[in-house]
Amino acid sequence: MNHNHTPVLIIGAGPAGLTLSHLLHLDGVESIVLEKRSREEVEGTIRAGILEPATLDLMKRTGVGDRVAREGIPEEGIEISVDGNRTRIDLYGLTGKTAAIYPQHEFLKDFISRRLKDKGTILFNTTVRDIEGEVVTIETPAGEITHIRADHVVAADGSASPWRQKVAEVRARHEYPYAWFGLLVEAPPTHSELIYATHPAGFALISKRNENVQRYYLQCDPNDQPEDWPEERIWEQLHLRADSNEITVSEGNITEKAVLRFRSAVTEPMQRGNLYLAGDSAHTVPPTGAKGLNLAVADVEVLAPGLIRAVKTGHTDLLDKYTEFALPHVWRAQQFSWWMSSLLHATKGENHFSARRRIAQLRSVLDSEAGRRFLAEQYVGTQAKELTS
Amino acid sequence: MNHNHTPVLIIGAGPAGLTLSHLLHLDGVESIVLEKRSREEVEGTIRAGILEPATLDLMKRTGVGDRVAREGIPEEGIEISVDGNRTRIDLYGLTGKTAAIYPQHEFLKDFISRRLKDKGTILFNTTVRDIEGEVVTIETPAGEITHIRADHVVAADGSASPWRQKVAEVRARHEYPYAWFGLLVEAPPTHSELIYATHPAGFALISKRNENVQRYYLQCDPNDQPEDWPEERIWEQLHLRADSNEITVSEGNITEKAVLRFRSAVTEPMQRGNLYLAGDSAHTVPPTGAKGLNLAVADVEVLAPGLIRAVKTGHTDLLDKYTEFALPHVWRAQQFSWWMSSLLHATKGENHFSARRRIAQLRSVLDSEAGRRFLAEQYVGTQAKELTS
Ligand SMILES: Cc1cc2nc3c(=O)[nH]c(=O)nc-3n(C[C@H](O)[C@H](O)[C@H](O)COP(=O)(O)OP(=O)(O)OC[C@H]3O[C@@H](n4cnc5c(N)ncnc54)[C@H](O)[C@@H]3O)c2cc1C
Ligand SMILES: Cc1cc2nc3c(=O)[nH]c(=O)nc-3n(C[C@H](O)[C@H](O)[C@H](O)COP(=O)(O)OP(=O)(O)OC[C@H]3O[C@@H](n4cnc5c(N)ncnc54)[C@H](O)[C@@H]3O)c2cc1C
Repeated sequence: MNHNHTPVLIIGAGPAGLTLSHLLHLDGVESIVLEKRSREEVEGTIRAGILEPATLDLMKRTGVGDRVAREGIPEEGIEISVDGNRTRIDLYGLTGKTAAIYPQHEFLKDFISRRLKDKGTILFNTTVRDIEGEVVTIETPAGEITHIRADHVVAADGSASPWRQKVAEVRARHEYPYAWFGLLVEAPPTHSELIYATHPAGFALISKRNENVQRYYLQCDPNDQPEDWPEERIWEQLHLRADSNEITVSEGNITEKAVLRFRSAVTEPMQRGNLYLAGDSAHTVPPTGAKGLNLAVADVEVLAPGLIRAVKTGHTDLLDKYTEFALPHVWRAQQFSWWMSSLLHATKGENHFSARRRIAQLRSVLDSEAGRRFLAEQYVGTQAKELTS
Repeated sequence: MNHNHTPVLIIGAGPAGLTLSHLLHLDGVESIVLEKRSREEVEGTIRAGILEPATLDLMKRTGVGDRVAREGIPEEGIEISVDGNRTRIDLYGLTGKTAAIYPQHEFLKDFISRRLKDKGTILFNTTVRDIEGEVVTIETPAGEITHIRADHVVAADGSASPWRQKVAEVRARHEYPYAWFGLLVEAPPTHSELIYATHPAGFALISKRNENVQRYYLQCDPNDQPEDWPEERIWEQLHLRADSNEITVSEGNITEKAVLRFRSAVTEPMQRGNLYLAGDSAHTVPPTGAKGLNLAVADVEVLAPGLIRAVKTGHTDLLDKYTEFALPHVWRAQQFSWWMSSLLHATKGENHFSARRRIAQLRSVLDSEAGRRFLAEQYVGTQAKELTS
């Protein structure tokens, strides 16, 4: 294959890059996706797991929603446990919408197979080495250095994107004084719905992967290593933080342990010249609230119409508004992720006032229908959807 | 008059003390209220101005609600202005309840005249000098030192209460990096409803006293002195922060200037032995949200039934739960005052992330019916009322 020129070059076959190339194709704009990893690796990496209604809607609307409709597990509610007292947030009842539990790599498989079926170009094992205006330097699977000319270049290459610095004027950051210790456990489900548990000892998240494997998270220190968490401490802390009447965290063989950093970052603007940032290359959210994948999709939903118009008509008026149109939903997702994190985590050295105030706010939310709906709307992302539509 | 013994001695003829003595009397329990200031001074000091539905309800139920029903101005909604864009929070439409604008000294006049009509004892110009168990040492208007024996002593003597230290195990505190510069202005109303305005330059509150006098507040530095605010700066900042389309802050002669500190504090527990704290002696809230007076009344609504039962039957079971029953509403009021303050104030040195996140949260609240209702419920205090009833 020889690709001297493309209207749109996309770096990264993650949620942002693949969704974008699919949306462009549906409107008759061709693109090239470059992905440094192999197809197997991309399709085998376990990351995000919750698809918001807006993401599900886009998949359905654009013809890639069949499998998720069959295999995704509807998330109709979540439980919030405060010192062992649970309150259910009836996501569906409160918002009329449900999210779905569907692993990110399954999402990627659906988009990759569809792009290939549509004769789209995804070059795996191909790494972008440099970008200079319209000239993108790449290293092919054979290790050769070559160039592609592109009218528009979209860096959808994830949170370590080196191209961000070509675009960013401001990089807003927030560090959290805690992290999550993530576990994969061979055990039956603890509960049918996610449990977000807060306790003076810290936060725990009990989530269900399938009938035999569960995903648990424990709030830990950002500097903790898996060695700091012997099995005994893990189970003791899971029970202490997340058990409640009728529900006991189910135990089993732990097959994976990893510490997940908490970090918020937003790049402004998201465009300079013909270079655009989308997804994690532009912004990072902490895992609470599960916004990362959905935010990547929301970005390209805003970017695609601008690119299509520019490629087809030469008018960049819409494209030039990309940052302006994308930032409101980016900041909403950041704010919700921060809020949800702040409500649920006991921070080390937190004083008496902060600890009591935090629980009082959580109780205000949980004890009021309006409070639960306010949280539910942001959790399922209906607020963001209203904005972009 | 000679008062050797009383079942309940109340220090302070503020909202907490007067409401308590009235509630006790209605159930046949007599008390003595000691107040160090003169009646004229108490009835002439301008402080709080917003009565929540629960406070209005208590006044009505207990026969002191006639004047407020006639003269109080119903607060059916408030405006929140973000960089000059206003959103109305329809308090009545969202909660079915309204607060009322009615000055604290008018509230006090109503209770004082009713207590005196009921032959209640309020000793003005009388200062408590010491408390030792059941023996309270007082200084009479003539400067004599004498003693009263009391089965129960309630310190409702405001935020500087020296008796707090006899009760407190924990004093939770929070200091805010800002204060309010309060102004009384001879001018026609700017708007019919309160305007809470946030702007990168800081917060402003535009409130209406009557047709000729207005109360404005400007966020300022806690160390600011009135001299730091020449007239020119005051008007420039009021217009910058609070003007919006159709609404211009009305100017006039400034007759009063004062810096109001922002502080949160909660004392735990609120009882030790026969000594009880109620109102500002137990806790301080920042002025945003106008909870202070209402919280004082809520405390004594919880304390009164316990005292009545103890005095009439000797059973202290209910009384001993005073702290436990009062703290949930105390912390809700603290949390709301903190939240409302945090949402609306631009803090000096606030980084880009915090500033954007704050405005994104405010927009989440304002753009969603559930968000507005969640705020309105806490503003009018219906959540707290459900708790105590
Ligand atoms: C453990 C974990 C759990 C998570 N859980 C959730 C969750 O529950 N819900 C949620 O919404 N989000 C979650 N996230 C976040 C979510 O996975 C990301 O937000 C999402 O993957 C972002 O998509 P993206 O397309 O922007 O970037 P990525 O998915 O990171 O894709 C970028 C792609 O670019 C490729 N690439 C990088 N550099 C180059 C280069 N120079 N040349 C060519 N290709 C390159 C990479 O190989 C990669 O495939 C989680 C993340 C992690 C790590
Ligand atoms: C400028 C200002 C504006 C405010 N605005 C609002 C608002 O809009 N809404 C709101 O809800 N709250 C507001 N507040 C707070 C509100 O005024 C207080 O929360 C409320 O007055 C508390 O009532 P209290 O009865 O606990 O104490 P106080 O009203 O302080 O009454 C205590 C009384 O005890 C007396 N006393 C003190 N020591 C002794 C002693 N040793 N012996 C005898 N008597 C003693 C004092 O003279 C005083 O009369 C405001 C406060 C201020 C200062």
